[in-house]
Amino acid sequence: MTSQFPGSDDVILGPGDDAAVVAAPDGRTVATTDLLVEGRHFRRDWSSARDVGHRAVAQNFADVAAMGARPTGLLIGFAAPADLPLEWAEEFTLGVRDECAAAGGAVAGGDTVGSDTLTIAVTALGDLEGRAPVRRDGARPGDVVACTGRLGLSAAGFALLRRGIDGPAECLAEHRRPSPPYAAGPEAARLGATAMLDVSDGLVQDLGHVCRASGVAVDLDPALLLPEPALLEAVRLLGGGPERARDMMIAGGEDHALAATFPAGTELPPHWYRLGSVVDAGGGGAEVTVGGAAPRMRGWDHFHE
Amino acid sequence: MTSQFPGSDDVILGPGDDAAVVAAPDGRTVATTDLLVEGRHFRRDWSSARDVGHRAVAQNFADVAAMGARPTGLLIGFAAPADLPLEWAEEFTLGVRDECAAAGGAVAGGDTVGSDTLTIAVTALGDLEGRAPVRRDGARPGDVVACTGRLGLSAAGFALLRRGIDGPAECLAEHRRPSPPYAAGPEAARLGATAMLDVSDGLVQDLGHVCRASGVAVDLDPALLLPEPALLEAVRLLGGGPERARDMMIAGGEDHALAATFPAGTELPPHWYRLGSVVDAGGGGAEVTVGGAAPRMRGWDHFHE
Repeated sequence: MTSQFPGSDDVILGPGDDAAVVAAPDGRTVATTDLLVEGRHFRRDWSSARDVGHRAVAQNFADVAAMGARPTGLLIGFAAPADLPLEWAEEFTLGVRDECAAAGGAVAGGDTVGSDTLTIAVTALGDLEGRAPVRRDGARPGDVVACTGRLGLSAAGFALLRRGIDGPAECLAEHRRPSPPYAAGPEAARLGATAMLDVSDGLVQDLGHVCRASGVAVDLDPALLLPEPALLEAVRLLGGGPERARDMMIAGGEDHALAATFPAGTELPPHWYRLGSVVDAGGGGAEVTVGGAAPRMRGWDHFHE
Repeated sequence: MTSQFPGSDDVILGPGDDAAVVAAPDGRTVATTDLLVEGRHFRRDWSSARDVGHRAVAQNFADVAAMGARPTGLLIGFAAPADLPLEWAEEFTLGVRDECAAAGGAVAGGDTVGSDTLTIAVTALGDLEGRAPVRRDGARPGDVVACTGRLGLSAAGFALLRRGIDGPAECLAEHRRPSPPYAAGPEAARLGATAMLDVSDGLVQDLGHVCRASGVAVDLDPALLLPEPALLEAVRLLGGGPERARDMMIAGGEDHALAATFPAGTELPPHWYRLGSVVDAGGGGAEVTVGGAAPRMRGWDHFHE
């Protein structure tokens, strides 16, 4: 399935040999891998094959971007039952191709095997362009916490799909086909981000990783947690209010936004919006607070793992 | 599961962040990926968890070696059913660790998810050390065809397991836990190999890839196809003779030996044994011949894909 993908300057040797050769201009390569399993990470009745192809690539190149790196190459393992319609695989391939184009990376290789469980394994590679990787452990008290990308829409889309409610297209689309702000990763690194990560398990949970790695706490400013109109509308259809929309912003999964910490006074481009501040870890309690208080966490069922 | 692996100089940033950072000293990284699916690529009743860990790593780093590269980093995706015994995962991890040590690479990252089907996705990275990758398309008429590693033992081990025959331990071990000659890959590149590949689908089938890519044919010398004693013994237990042993050498899968072509006159170290010559492609017919004749191919059932 890998023979039909366009090449790129980064893919020095593409599919067809024992292994691919991918450029790593500064002598290092960023590498990350994810498995997507049908029924756990996607459902064929909720997402098109093309959507799944987009998502498989997006969530991996988002991790590359979250290190401050530029996407280069992608390896894709495809394990499929014998009765998978050929069209599904073809449409999936188109999604992979198009999301690679959006991210600026190219398919370098892959493996196709049979399995009772449709499973997609993606490994994404990236180029740090000479910069240090932006890790999770560099946040310091006084830093600004900022985000780029859309928070809560994917979780709202998921909740709508679960309940069979036809809600705002933006929410459904963001769940089916996230659109990570790839270029903002290297941009944040250039701006001096002290820590960064891909928001995939919910903002509070993911910022908790930064807090633990950096030995700090984060206080989100409730006045800055402003749900988008589409999110408010989705929550209204789900029977909730603005409070629930904010819950989705801070605890909903699969956003694939980027959250980063920057030294105070960093001039951020407008697509980075401030959410709060890094503060001293203090003596225990919640690592991530909202207006100084523990977040009003509300679980919603996930079939995701 | 990736936190318990030892680091290495090549793994600049290991598991625990959005992505790993792996050294690529000459500005390129070799990259390959494989999926192993329970029931298709391994069976828990035939192979121990530790064997499967070894094999998952070995078949991927063998592909890296087959490009002439030195193993550097490994990413491992692990999709497991909820009832998988914890000990199985722990033993698997030890196999991964030990085979990484044998190959000289280190685990850089991974992903663990749930699935109804136990599935292992491995991506291996490697360093060409400034050399050109040894591809499949460089073989020229007059080149010597040589091999290093053990041919046929894995296929014999598989046939023994299938029929429940307790045969030579070397054959069973080679099937359960192949031992690719990793260092011979970079060595062949330094010796000027014109083409090289990992023998995983059987020697004839794999050399056929070289023939098609290079526009040549290969004639294997029957006098050089000498089965090892353990292979002859296994075949005897299976009710076959020397002819069947040679069939296993040229058509059995999963050897993870390295086959390469070298310019005539290349002085090869003794662990590289000659098997035949590259000849003109001529007008059609078999791409790989044995003593000038089409090989006496004999299929045996594979549950592998």
